[in-house]
Amino acid sequence: MSIKNVVIIGGGTGTFVTLSALKNYPVKLKAIVSMIDSGGSTGRLRDQLGVLPPGDVRQALVALSDESKIWRDLFTYRFENGDLNGHTFGNIFLSTIEKMAGSLPEAIKVSQKLLKTKGDILPVTLDKSTLYAKLSDGTVVEGEAKIDVLGEDWKSPVRKISKCWISPKAYATKESLKAIEVADFIIIGPGDLHTSILPNFLVDGMARAITKSTAKKIFVVNLMTKRGQTDGFKASNFITELKKISRGLVFDYILINNGKVEKSVVGWYKKTCEVGPVVNDLTENKRTKVIPSDTVGSTKYGKTISDRIQRSLIRHDPEKLGKALIKIILG
Amino acid sequence: MSIKNVVIIGGGTGTFVTLSALKNYPVKLKAIVSMIDSGGSTGRLRDQLGVLPPGDVRQALVALSDESKIWRDLFTYRFENGDLNGHTFGNIFLSTIEKMAGSLPEAIKVSQKLLKTKGDILPVTLDKSTLYAKLSDGTVVEGEAKIDVLGEDWKSPVRKISKCWISPKAYATKESLKAIEVADFIIIGPGDLHTSILPNFLVDGMARAITKSTAKKIFVVNLMTKRGQTDGFKASNFITELKKISRGLVFDYILINNGKVEKSVVGWYKKTCEVGPVVNDLTENKRTKVIPSDTVGSTKYGKTISDRIQRSLIRHDPEKLGKALIKIILG
Repeated sequence: MSIKNVVIIGGGTGTFVTLSALKNYPVKLKAIVSMIDSGGSTGRLRDQLGVLPPGDVRQALVALSDESKIWRDLFTYRFENGDLNGHTFGNIFLSTIEKMAGSLPEAIKVSQKLLKTKGDILPVTLDKSTLYAKLSDGTVVEGEAKIDVLGEDWKSPVRKISKCWISPKAYATKESLKAIEVADFIIIGPGDLHTSILPNFLVDGMARAITKSTAKKIFVVNLMTKRGQTDGFKASNFITELKKISRGLVFDYILINNGKVEKSVVGWYKKTCEVGPVVNDLTENKRTKVIPSDTVGSTKYGKTISDRIQRSLIRHDPEKLGKALIKIILG
Repeated sequence: MSIKNVVIIGGGTGTFVTLSALKNYPVKLKAIVSMIDSGGSTGRLRDQLGVLPPGDVRQALVALSDESKIWRDLFTYRFENGDLNGHTFGNIFLSTIEKMAGSLPEAIKVSQKLLKTKGDILPVTLDKSTLYAKLSDGTVVEGEAKIDVLGEDWKSPVRKISKCWISPKAYATKESLKAIEVADFIIIGPGDLHTSILPNFLVDGMARAITKSTAKKIFVVNLMTKRGQTDGFKASNFITELKKISRGLVFDYILINNGKVEKSVVGWYKKTCEVGPVVNDLTENKRTKVIPSDTVGSTKYGKTISDRIQRSLIRHDPEKLGKALIKIILG
C-alpha cells in the first residue's frame, strides 16, 4: 500500500490543530494555506496572544515541526525593549529567510528544512489580494483582519455576512493545484469559515480543482459557532456555504464532535459571546458518511488577557482528531 | 566496540573545521569552547566577514548542525536597514533563546535541538573573564579581540607575546571537566594559539583535567603561522607552549599537514603578512606519534574585502582532516 497523499486546506488555528493531529502518522501531508490579506497585522494579534505565531505560513511551519513546542515559544517571543521592541521572533525569522531566499516559496522550503517539518506548506496564491465581506445591512468590510473580529464588538447586534470576495483577482499556485490533483484525501476544516476556509476557494482555480479532484473529501465541523460569522449555524449550514462557493463540492466524510463540552463552559460562552456548540443536523446519504466522534479537547483555563482569548479556549484535541482522521484515511 | 567519546577543545574557525570534519562519523562529539572575552565584538567582525557567525558557541552550533550551510547563511545575515539595522540574525537568535531559556547552558541545549547538532557544545566556563597578553616590550594588551588583531597593523614591527593570563579567575564548568574525564580522545587545534586555544587552559581546573585525563590526546598543527601570535613558529614551538601552560601535557598523536600549498599563495602570504606554513621539525618518540598527512584545503579566492579576509583563505579541508582524524580514532 502506497503512502496516502493528504492535503489540508485552510489556515489559522484550525489548520494548526489538524496538522498537529496528523503529522505523526505515516501519511504525506501538504498544507495549502490562505495567504489572503496576510499583510494585515491587527487581527493577527489574537493568534499571537493565543500562543500561536501570526500568519498562516508560520503557524503551519510550527505545527509540522518536529520540535513544535520550542519553535512555538520562539516564534511568539516578543521583544519588549531595545532595537527589537515590538517585533516577534517569528516575524524576524521568516522575513530574514525570505530576504535571503529571494521569494516566499523558497523561504518556505528553507524553513521546512530548518524546522524539520513533516510535510509541505503551500501558499494558495502568491498574488496580493484583499478579502471583502458584504454584511446584511449593506456595509462592505475590507480586509480579513477586520472581518475576523466583526463579532467582537459585543455591544452591537450581529450583522450576517451575505457575501465574500477577494480583489484584485488572485491565482492559485501550480503547486497547490498539483497537490490537489494527486491527493488521495482532502481535509477542510476546522477553522473560521469566512476568514480561514472560504478565502482559499476564492482564489482563481481552487474551487474548480477541489470539486473536480478524485480525492476523498473530509470536512471537520467546527466545535463552536463564531459570532459575526456563523451565528446560529448548524453543521448543514457549513456544508451549504461550501457547496455554494465551490459550485458543487460534495464531501465523502463529515467528522463532527459528539464529545461533551463542560456545561459551565457552554454557559459562559453563550452568555459572553452568544455562541454555542455546532449542532449535528446532518442526515447521512449514499454519497456522504457522517462520523460523530469525540474530538473535543479538555478546556484550558489560561491567563485571561481578554475575552478574545477566552473565546478560543475550546479546541479540538489533536490526539483524538488524529485518531478519528487516520481511521478514515487508512481505513 | 563502544562508540568513542571525542572531545574537541578550542573555539573559532579551527574548531569549526574540526567539528565539521568529524560530525558525520560515528563518534560522540563534545566541543568545549572558549568563552573568554566573548562579549567583545570588534575582533569578531573578522569571523563574520569570513562567513562564520560571531562567537564560539554559535560557530560550534553551526558546525555541528545537520543543515550547516543554511544555518551559517542565516546566522551571518546582517540587517542593513530598519529597526534591526546592524544586528546579525545569529545574534538575535541566540540572545532570544537565552532570554527564553534563562541561562546560556539551557539556551545551548535548546539550540542544539533546533539545529539538530550532532554532538554537544560545552562552554568552558560561565564566569566572565578577560584575556590579557604581555608583549615583549612590556605593553599589556587587554581583551581577546585586541590580542587577536595585534599582528594586523602591518606597518608596525611584530612584538612577541611573552605571557597570557585571564582575570578575574574563571572556573571550568563541571560538564567540561566531566567530558574530559570520560573522553577517549581529546583533540586540540587547529586554531589561533593565544586567542582560541590557550584561553581554555587558563580556566581554573582545565589544564590539570586535560593533562591528567587518560584520553589519547591529538594535536592538529596549524597550516600557517599567525602574525603577532606565532611568528616564526615551527611545529615544536606550539607543543612547547602548550606543555608550558598545561604543566606537562604530552600528546599521543600530532597531525601535521604535508600537502602542498600553492606557491603563489605562499608568496603572497609571505609578502603581505610575513607569515608562512608551519614547518614540521618534530621528531617522533616513544610516547608521541607524528602523522604527516595532506589535510590542506584548496585555496579559495573569494571577494577581497580586506587583507584580513584574504589571510584566512587557507584552511584545512574538512574532508581530508576528518579522514586523517578518524583513522587515528577508529584505528
